[in-house]
This record gives sequence, C-alpha cells and structure tokens, in this order.
Amino acid sequence: MNFTETDCLNMTQEWLEKIKWSEDGLVPAIAQDYKTGRVLMMAWMNREALQQTINLERAVYWSRSRQKLWRKGEESGHVQKLRDIRIDCDRDVILIQVEQVGGIACHTGRESCFFSRYQDGQWLEVEPVLKDPINIYK
Amino acid sequence: MNFTETDCLNMTQEWLEKIKWSEDGLVPAIAQDYKTGRVLMMAWMNREALQQTINLERAVYWSRSRQKLWRKGEESGHVQKLRDIRIDCDRDVILIQVEQVGGIACHTGRESCFFSRYQDGQWLEVEPVLKDPINIYK
Repeated sequence: MNFTETDCLNMTQEWLEKIKWSEDGLVPAIAQDYKTGRVLMMAWMNREALQQTINLERAVYWSRSRQKLWRKGEESGHVQKLRDIRIDCDRDVILIQVEQVGGIACHTGRESCFFSRYQDGQWLEVEPVLKDPINIYK
Repeated sequence: MNFTETDCLNMTQEWLEKIKWSEDGLVPAIAQDYKTGRVLMMAWMNREALQQTINLERAVYWSRSRQKLWRKGEESGHVQKLRDIRIDCDRDVILIQVEQVGGIACHTGRESCFFSRYQDGQWLEVEPVLKDPINIYK
C-alpha cells in the first residue's frame, strides 16, 4: 500500500492533533524539576512550541504577552533540558520534567515561580532570590 | 480610626484581587501531592472556588464543562486535603499542595491524571489503573 505525502503528514501529526488545543491554539504546560519534583513554572505552548520542545529537547513556550515563541533560557541561559513529556487524561494540559540549568526558573532569580504562599489573607514571599535579575539579563 | 463595612470587605478581599483572573474569572490550579511531589492534576478555580478551598481546607475547583463548583472528591471520596497554597510570579497560576485521600486523583482510577507519556510520536499510557472507575463512582 502506498501513502500520499498528506497521508504521511497526517500520520506523523496524529499525536499532536490528539491534544485538545484551546480556541487560541494553546495548552498550559507545567514544568517540573525532574530531580526534586519542584513545580517550577506554568506557561503556554502552541503546536510549534511543543514540536520544538521535542525536537530541541528543551522547553520552548509560546509567549502570550509577546506573541512569539519563547525558547526558555535564550537570554538568561536558564535553559530547561527535556526529560519527559506527559499529557493529562483530558488531553488539554502538558507536564514536562526538566533539568533546570542554573537552578533558576523564575525571572525574579528564584528557583521556582511559585515563591508566594497564601497565609492569613496575604500572599507572602517565602523564598530567596538566588541571583539578582540584573545579573541574569545582561 | 474606624472602617466601614466596605473598607473591611476590601481589606479582606485584597489578596483575592491581587490574582490576575482571566476574562472568564478563572485561573489554572495545579494540584501536587505534598508527600511525593507528584503532579496530580490541573483544573480551574474562580474566586468562589479558591475561597472555598481555603475555608474548607480541601480542593474546590470550577468545572468549566459543567459550569459549577466542583468539590473534588464529593462523589468519589477522593478528597484533596489542603496543605499549602502558592501563586506564581505573574499571579495568574495557583499551585496547591494536597494530601490525596485514597491515593487516586484521576477519574480513570489512576494516581495522577498525567499517565500518558510522549514517546516516538505517540502518547503511551504508562501507569496502572489502581481502582476500576465503576467501583469509584457508584
């Protein structure tokens, strides 16, 4: 049996189309440190970001504010090397396990973006800045 | 100094209004097992869901498909007891640490909703069903 080019493309893209993309063509992507289990951040991916994440073996997101691909770490050097990709039961959320280069995921210079804890009606910053952002984004 | 009722309400709600709610009044909420670090699921919360989560000390989400509050575990018994609440640097994603009653978060009877792994152009189910959903939702 022979396949047309379209057949082949459809076959190779099948995994991508199994994802329930939002109307904007996005899904939330959670990044977790593969060693510590720390949830580092959540951002968004479109089809191209997810494909690049797989091809480059590093996290690539879609920046909604800048409306462009965001190769995590391209300015800061804080690249997230890919270790594992999962999708949830509803196929509308991605979870990636990553090796966080530099041990800093957050643009504030902290390990994780989730450094503010709810306590007694307030959000308290409970984690240290590991590196001054001035020295990250030179 | 005296405060009006509105002053008091505004003060007590300040933490809630610091959150960047979407146009639909929602934020993504990631639930992580507080002991194992396993990411169990991601769902959505509106203001009421988040307030109930805090007041009841268990995860309460907003079901987008059913358009109503979803007290996680009310049918299955798989309640998520609250241990910690975080918000990210952009204040638009919530991360909760939970004690997962029954060790099952997913409606398929698995520990986590993230049981499908990307491998060689396919999504493979790589984790066992711990309890048949027929016996969960009786």
